[in-house]
Amino acid sequence: MPDSYAPVLSVDLGAMLANYNLLCRRALPAICGAVVKADAYGLGAAMIAPHLKRAGCAHFFVATVDEGLALRRVLLPGVKIYLLDGLPPGAENDIAAAELIPILNTLAEIERWRSFQRGPGAKAAALRQAGLHFDTGLNRLGLDRRATLDLIGDPHLLDGCNIGLVMSHLACADDPEHPMNRTQLQAFREIAANLRLPPRLDGGGRPLLSLAASSGIFLPSDYHFDLARPGVALYGVSPVLGAENPLAPVLRLQAKILQLRDVDLDMTVGYGASHQVRGPTCLATIGVGYADGIFRSLGNRGAVFVAGQRAPIVGRISMDLMTIDVGHMPRQAVQPGTLVDLIGPAAPRGQSIDDLATASGTIGYEILTNLGPRFQRRYSGG
Amino acid sequence: MPDSYAPVLSVDLGAMLANYNLLCRRALPAICGAVVKADAYGLGAAMIAPHLKRAGCAHFFVATVDEGLALRRVLLPGVKIYLLDGLPPGAENDIAAAELIPILNTLAEIERWRSFQRGPGAKAAALRQAGLHFDTGLNRLGLDRRATLDLIGDPHLLDGCNIGLVMSHLACADDPEHPMNRTQLQAFREIAANLRLPPRLDGGGRPLLSLAASSGIFLPSDYHFDLARPGVALYGVSPVLGAENPLAPVLRLQAKILQLRDVDLDMTVGYGASHQVRGPTCLATIGVGYADGIFRSLGNRGAVFVAGQRAPIVGRISMDLMTIDVGHMPRQAVQPGTLVDLIGPAAPRGQSIDDLATASGTIGYEILTNLGPRFQRRYSGG
Repeated sequence: MPDSYAPVLSVDLGAMLANYNLLCRRALPAICGAVVKADAYGLGAAMIAPHLKRAGCAHFFVATVDEGLALRRVLLPGVKIYLLDGLPPGAENDIAAAELIPILNTLAEIERWRSFQRGPGAKAAALRQAGLHFDTGLNRLGLDRRATLDLIGDPHLLDGCNIGLVMSHLACADDPEHPMNRTQLQAFREIAANLRLPPRLDGGGRPLLSLAASSGIFLPSDYHFDLARPGVALYGVSPVLGAENPLAPVLRLQAKILQLRDVDLDMTVGYGASHQVRGPTCLATIGVGYADGIFRSLGNRGAVFVAGQRAPIVGRISMDLMTIDVGHMPRQAVQPGTLVDLIGPAAPRGQSIDDLATASGTIGYEILTNLGPRFQRRYSGG
Repeated sequence: MPDSYAPVLSVDLGAMLANYNLLCRRALPAICGAVVKADAYGLGAAMIAPHLKRAGCAHFFVATVDEGLALRRVLLPGVKIYLLDGLPPGAENDIAAAELIPILNTLAEIERWRSFQRGPGAKAAALRQAGLHFDTGLNRLGLDRRATLDLIGDPHLLDGCNIGLVMSHLACADDPEHPMNRTQLQAFREIAANLRLPPRLDGGGRPLLSLAASSGIFLPSDYHFDLARPGVALYGVSPVLGAENPLAPVLRLQAKILQLRDVDLDMTVGYGASHQVRGPTCLATIGVGYADGIFRSLGNRGAVFVAGQRAPIVGRISMDLMTIDVGHMPRQAVQPGTLVDLIGPAAPRGQSIDDLATASGTIGYEILTNLGPRFQRRYSGG
C-alpha cells in the first residue's frame, strides 16, 4: 500500500444487513427491495448488492440503464432489477438482453415498450416485465394526472405489456405529519383501485404495488403495500426528520494527519485568511478535502474527532486538505499518521453522517453520494 | 451506447491548451507547470496531462502518491511529477521507483528522505530529486517558521537531499489587493535569500523557486519566480475575484430531458413540497442530480439553459434528477431527449462554471472536482 495517507471509507456490511432486516420487519407483511442507484449511494453496488441478495432481497432499483447493466453483471438473473429513470430511446434491446425491468414514466414510453414487445424477438416478450410509475404529487417522474386518466380510461394502451410493478414516490415521507403524505396515499389507492391491466403474459398475478421508500417504511402500515424500496436507510442515514434514528451506523470515514503546526496570534489559517488564530495553539492538517466530497461549506464550521475528542475545523476546506485545531489535546494523541474521524464512531466519541451533513448545510444523502474516488474503501462484516 | 440519457461532460482540450499558452505567456520569463491533482480537477488526468506534455509542460503536480503513480503510468519519465502532500512513511521505494518528486513539508519528512537516500540503492540517490515547501502564512502544509529557521541555521540537515524545487503557496492570491500577498512574497524572498542548500547530487544548479498558482500568475511579475503552477485556470475557472475572466471556457455540462409535465396552481414540486406552482406551466425533469455533483443547494435557485434560453430550477435537486420550468418556451424546443446546458455555452445563451458555482453557494473548483462518474466524458480539440 504505497499511499498510507489516503483517506479511508469503512463500510460495515453486517450493520447494513442488520438495517435491511430491521426495515424488512418494519415493512411486514410487505417485502423489501433495495435501492442501489448511484453506485449504492457511493458505497459500491458491486459489494453491497450481493450481500443484500444473500439476505433474501430479490428486487433491486437503479436509476439508469448503465447502472442496471453494471448491476446485472454482478447479480445473475433471478433477482429483479428495475430502472427508475424509465426507458431511454434505443435502449430496449440492451434492457431486454440483461432482463432489466424498465419503469415506464410516460405514455410515450409505454407506447415504445409496446412496439418493442411486438417486434422481432416477440416470442421472448412474455418473459419481459415492465413497471409503471404514477406521479401522485412529487411532480418529478411518472405518469401525470392526464396520462393516468388516459390509462385508466383505456386499458388497451397497455396491451402487450407485462406489468409486474405499479409504483409511486412520496415527496414528504421524512415528515410524518406532512399532509402531502395522506394526499399521495389517497391518490395512489385510487389509481390501484381503478387501473385495469391486461392479463400478464407470463401468467403472473396482479402487479406488486409500491409506494414507500426509506422514510415511507416509518409511516403507518397502510403506506407499505406489497413492496418497500429502502435506499439511504440501509446505510444508516436517519429516515425521519428530528426523530431518533433506529438504524445502525454503517460508515466510518477517516483521514490522516499529515502535519502538525504551532500557530500564534499573528497568524491566519487557510485560503482567504478566513480564520484568525485567537491564541497559541496547534493545528493539524488532514489529508482530505472537498475533492473527496467533504463539503467546502464546512470551512470554519463543524468538527472532526481525534481519539474520541472533538477538534473544530478552522479555516476553509481546501481541495485535498483541511485544518483542525488540536491545541487542547495531548500531543501523543495527535501525530502525523494519526487517523481522525469525520463520520463515526457513535457520539460522544464521534459524529453521525447526519451530524456531518447538518454542519455542511445538507442531508446525509448528499454526503454519501459525493464521497470521492480517493477514499480507500474497506468492507467488513459481510 | 445503451444509455442515451446519461449526462454529458464535454472537455475542449483545444481551449485548455489555449489557456495553458495564455498562462505561459503571462508568467514569462517564468515557466509554467500544471497541477493535475484530484484527477485533473475531475476532468481526467490521463487525458489532460499528455496534451499538456505535448504543449511543452514538463512539471506536473499531484497531491498524493497514488495520484503520482497513476500519472507516471501515463507520462513516461522525462517530465517531473511532484507530490504536494509530501512523503508518507513507507512510500519511499514506490516514489523512487516511479521517479516521483516528494515535496518535503516537515523536518521529519526531510530526515526520513535523507535516511532513504543513504540506504540500499544509494547509488541511485543522485537521480532522485525532492522539493521543499515553506509555509509563508497559509498555515496548511510546509515547513513552519521554526523549522524554516532550523533549516536556514543548519544546512547540513539537507545533506544528501537533492533539492530541485523550493516552493510556497499563497492564501489570498485571488484578491490582488489583499495585504497577505505582499507578506507572503516578502517571507518567501527572505527564505530564498537565506537558504543555503548542499551541492546538487546530480550536478544541477540552484533549485527552481515557485510561489504562484493559477491566481498568482495574475499578480505582478515579482510573484512568478522560476516556475508557476496553474491548476484550475487551465480549465477556465476565473482566477481573480470580481475581474473579467481572460480564460477560455473548457467545459460544457449537459443533461437530457427525461419527461415533460404540465402542472397547475394546486401542485407543489419535489421533495419537501418546497416549490409551489404559481400558475399553469410546464416542467421538465432532467436526468442529473446531486449524486452527479450538481449541488443540492441549487434547489429553487439558479437555472439551466435550454436552446439558449434560461430555465429556472424549481423544487429541490434530487439524487438523480432535477426539475426546471420550461413553460415560457416553445414546445418543440423541449422534448424528451433534448440536451439542456448546466455549464456553457457563453452568456447570454448559457452560463459559466463560475455562474453555476455562485448559484450553488461555492466556487468553481468545488463544482469541477465533484462532477460524478455518471457523466459521459467527451474530449474534443486535442
